[in-house]
Amino acid sequence: MEEQLQAVKKEDSDNDCIFCKIVKGDVPCAKLLEDDKILIFLDIAPANKGHALIITKDHYETLLEIPDDVLDDMMVKARKIARAMSSAIGNEGFNILMNNKKVAGQLVPHAHVHVIPRFPGDGVSLNWVPRKYNENEIDGFKEKIKSFL
Amino acid sequence: MEEQLQAVKKEDSDNDCIFCKIVKGDVPCAKLLEDDKILIFLDIAPANKGHALIITKDHYETLLEIPDDVLDDMMVKARKIARAMSSAIGNEGFNILMNNKKVAGQLVPHAHVHVIPRFPGDGVSLNWVPRKYNENEIDGFKEKIKSFL
Repeated sequence: MEEQLQAVKKEDSDNDCIFCKIVKGDVPCAKLLEDDKILIFLDIAPANKGHALIITKDHYETLLEIPDDVLDDMMVKARKIARAMSSAIGNEGFNILMNNKKVAGQLVPHAHVHVIPRFPGDGVSLNWVPRKYNENEIDGFKEKIKSFL
Repeated sequence: MEEQLQAVKKEDSDNDCIFCKIVKGDVPCAKLLEDDKILIFLDIAPANKGHALIITKDHYETLLEIPDDVLDDMMVKARKIARAMSSAIGNEGFNILMNNKKVAGQLVPHAHVHVIPRFPGDGVSLNWVPRKYNENEIDGFKEKIKSFL
């Protein structure tokens, strides 16, 4: 019964999910690299031209659900793409970004890593206004998080 | 001679680098987790309170220099911290961000991964205005990057 529910859940994801459709080849993409675990293609709405997306072939929503071996492959391939990208288009640096859940800016609920090439004065802003901890407050956060590790 | 130069280079990094000083214990931090490869602590200038940094124990500047085993460990531990963080402080989602080189917003030239807890209406913006490829331009970028893979 549990297995059936899992199968139904997986099929639903496949049907609704734009990234699952790209994995299946039902939606085209500008493919850079593919292996048994991940697919890498150019984002069609890039922060800068050359911006790549690394997606898992199986449907996982966020980082929290990705198995170790898939996660390892994603990051090793992110590094490979970042290196090739810099050689190809001459960007001085790059961002690795993974938004997890809508509140964090995740637009497609299928786990993906952005590799964003960066150039001087490109107008892309991935910064924040730093907040300040009150006295001893940081220790409270530390202890609270550590209690769940 | 090459070995001597490497040693000198490493010592320079250790001396100048604030994250190397944190690794050595010469500068204090609100430590969450530590193993032989990485150290995780709370950012003192957080995007949101609870914002954690994962740094490599050895000095690497960016993702491009991090060896496979260290990279694997960083990301598996990023997932572990993200899970504990959500349980501890109740954030709905989180960002994983790694800025590589100054042009990409990297403030400390020692490789580090941000884990940023996110809440509705928190005012943190890690978005961009999408650019548009001209007709067939995306294929040119694809082929250029693929030629370096």
